[in-house]
Amino acid sequence: MRKKYLMTPGPTPVPSEVLLAQARPMIHHRTPDFEQVVRECVEGLKYVFQTEQSDVLLFACSGTGAMESAVVNCFCAGDKVVVGYNGKFGQRMEQISKTYGLEVTKLEYGWQKVVDPADIAAYLAANPDARGVIVTQSETSSGVLNDVEAIARVVKDYPDCVLIVDSITGIGAVDVQTDAWGLDVVMTGSQKGLMLPPGLAAVSVSPKAWRACERSTLPKFYFDWKKHAKSLEKDTTPFTPAVSLMIGLAESLRLMREEGIENIIARHARLAEATRQGCEALGLELFAPAEGRGNAVTPVWVPEGLDGKKLVSIMKNRHGVTVAGGQDDYAGRIFRVGHLGYFGDFDIITTLAALEMTLVELGYDFEPGSGIKAAEKALIG
Amino acid sequence: MRKKYLMTPGPTPVPSEVLLAQARPMIHHRTPDFEQVVRECVEGLKYVFQTEQSDVLLFACSGTGAMESAVVNCFCAGDKVVVGYNGKFGQRMEQISKTYGLEVTKLEYGWQKVVDPADIAAYLAANPDARGVIVTQSETSSGVLNDVEAIARVVKDYPDCVLIVDSITGIGAVDVQTDAWGLDVVMTGSQKGLMLPPGLAAVSVSPKAWRACERSTLPKFYFDWKKHAKSLEKDTTPFTPAVSLMIGLAESLRLMREEGIENIIARHARLAEATRQGCEALGLELFAPAEGRGNAVTPVWVPEGLDGKKLVSIMKNRHGVTVAGGQDDYAGRIFRVGHLGYFGDFDIITTLAALEMTLVELGYDFEPGSGIKAAEKALIG
Repeated sequence: MRKKYLMTPGPTPVPSEVLLAQARPMIHHRTPDFEQVVRECVEGLKYVFQTEQSDVLLFACSGTGAMESAVVNCFCAGDKVVVGYNGKFGQRMEQISKTYGLEVTKLEYGWQKVVDPADIAAYLAANPDARGVIVTQSETSSGVLNDVEAIARVVKDYPDCVLIVDSITGIGAVDVQTDAWGLDVVMTGSQKGLMLPPGLAAVSVSPKAWRACERSTLPKFYFDWKKHAKSLEKDTTPFTPAVSLMIGLAESLRLMREEGIENIIARHARLAEATRQGCEALGLELFAPAEGRGNAVTPVWVPEGLDGKKLVSIMKNRHGVTVAGGQDDYAGRIFRVGHLGYFGDFDIITTLAALEMTLVELGYDFEPGSGIKAAEKALIG
Repeated sequence: MRKKYLMTPGPTPVPSEVLLAQARPMIHHRTPDFEQVVRECVEGLKYVFQTEQSDVLLFACSGTGAMESAVVNCFCAGDKVVVGYNGKFGQRMEQISKTYGLEVTKLEYGWQKVVDPADIAAYLAANPDARGVIVTQSETSSGVLNDVEAIARVVKDYPDCVLIVDSITGIGAVDVQTDAWGLDVVMTGSQKGLMLPPGLAAVSVSPKAWRACERSTLPKFYFDWKKHAKSLEKDTTPFTPAVSLMIGLAESLRLMREEGIENIIARHARLAEATRQGCEALGLELFAPAEGRGNAVTPVWVPEGLDGKKLVSIMKNRHGVTVAGGQDDYAGRIFRVGHLGYFGDFDIITTLAALEMTLVELGYDFEPGSGIKAAEKALIG
């Protein structure tokens, strides 16, 4: 037996309390017991999303289903939207929007630059009839954190334009002030900051987004927000919910409320900083730009001359530490350390130690222990 | 503490082996370990669906998502389809088809009659350009079992018309010979005969259904069959799968292969027969017609003068046995005993004993023990 450590940006490790909660004997979903679970999930999610004005809807699907739900519920075919993107998941929002016949303008920044709110402002000034701005807050593929607060300030001036935020690796890792910033639609998946297995997704819908929904004519059934909202009034769901995952979610939300959302965000900031300091002390270069580094995942360049796929494979197979490789153009060129959800100081120490041992094996020239030293310093603060 | 018994037609009880398998520490989905899980799930599902010719696709959603996937992948707006229905879930297929702009003819039989294959034949003779026949095999709301084998014989003569079978409570309870009968699309949900929590759905796609898919122009993304099939070639999924549920599914499919599909079907037939005999011996009347009674669920009329909601509530709250009430027009007028999935002889005995004790409390006139006696006789065979 070798102990295993899951350091990926989703799925993320699930606390034993949650694993066992979802292993409880099955209950029926049309019962007062389960209505109580629904209530706890919705209230807990509103707390985590920092919203009182928005409804939070739950779907049995993974994050992509939630993304699709935003498109089909907010728009009509032919609607103009702008997608600002710097990674794989921004691209997916573009693909979904095109699939449903929207007129999509993309603001592409490459994977190493943040979305510039001034570009959104320029787009909206030139296209005052635009119906949506779509942006990824925390881009899992590139580690880039976009400033959705600043973007929201721009969108606020357009009463018929909704701001849709993919916060799938944002919620529970970085600050997401749904009400205070004015985010119309925010979505997340269960296998991220919510510390659950994948299979559930949550979407918040602001009053402005509900107005968009009222005029939307795109076809939808399973992802129909109105059906879900109507059922939620009775603490239930229109279709059979993912019962075990929701029981797990009620448990993980209890853990999150115990810690407090501000403390959760601060913990993620600390762990991300320690990871960055540790890697830089090893002479490695961070992938995401200094002005937009998220706290969910730290992508790192593989040093020149080393085989990135081998690095990830040695960490996993020799040391039991699973980190993620790069995606698309960056496969083999970067690796990504996830520290999103159920993580503490010594998960970062473990990962950096495994990284150091792997770099020794790959013949990389550095001072073993220097990464740990820097991380310890950052963790002490 | 009172022991609890879940006798509903979904969610159904989950074996401890499966509950614990899905409570294992989380693993990443883009790994050889999880590819092995995908392979086991697909191979096991093909065994249960009795198919070698069809692909079986898996989605992180509940049954309604699978139903929607069939509509959006097989058709174009304006396509003619016929929906034969005798319950709530047939009606849902009609609603989904209308949502996507199909030209829907409905053959409505009420909740107590089987779909007549001759009516399908007459419809197709009058509408040779029809693109689809949609039918529920085992209607959970009414307990009616439709003869999809006979319907398939009719549809076979129309090369451009696919037969879509909602077998959500059929698979694992009654015979479903996907290849031998020629069923083009068959769907099921995890929380039924597969003995899992809800949140996963499986859909089989025949070569004829793939041809329909090729010409389909309805928009789809999350439920796009082609994306799923392409990923399955590499034993993976296009979007994050419901990892824990799939690990549970691999385990439940192992249990099902151990028992053997013929034995599983025979066990369900025995338990359903014992339930029916037991209820009739109590002087209760069965709801589903003699020519079409499924083995997944037994709906029973509440005797004249008794309060059906009270009956269900006493069984649950006094005796710990949860059965389902009636839906829609039959709320309070029938109750439904589920015996689909992880059930054995003494679950039926327990349920009938709880029913007898409840009927005593409600002042119903009968001979206590007579239901059990009849059930024992049926179980001995």
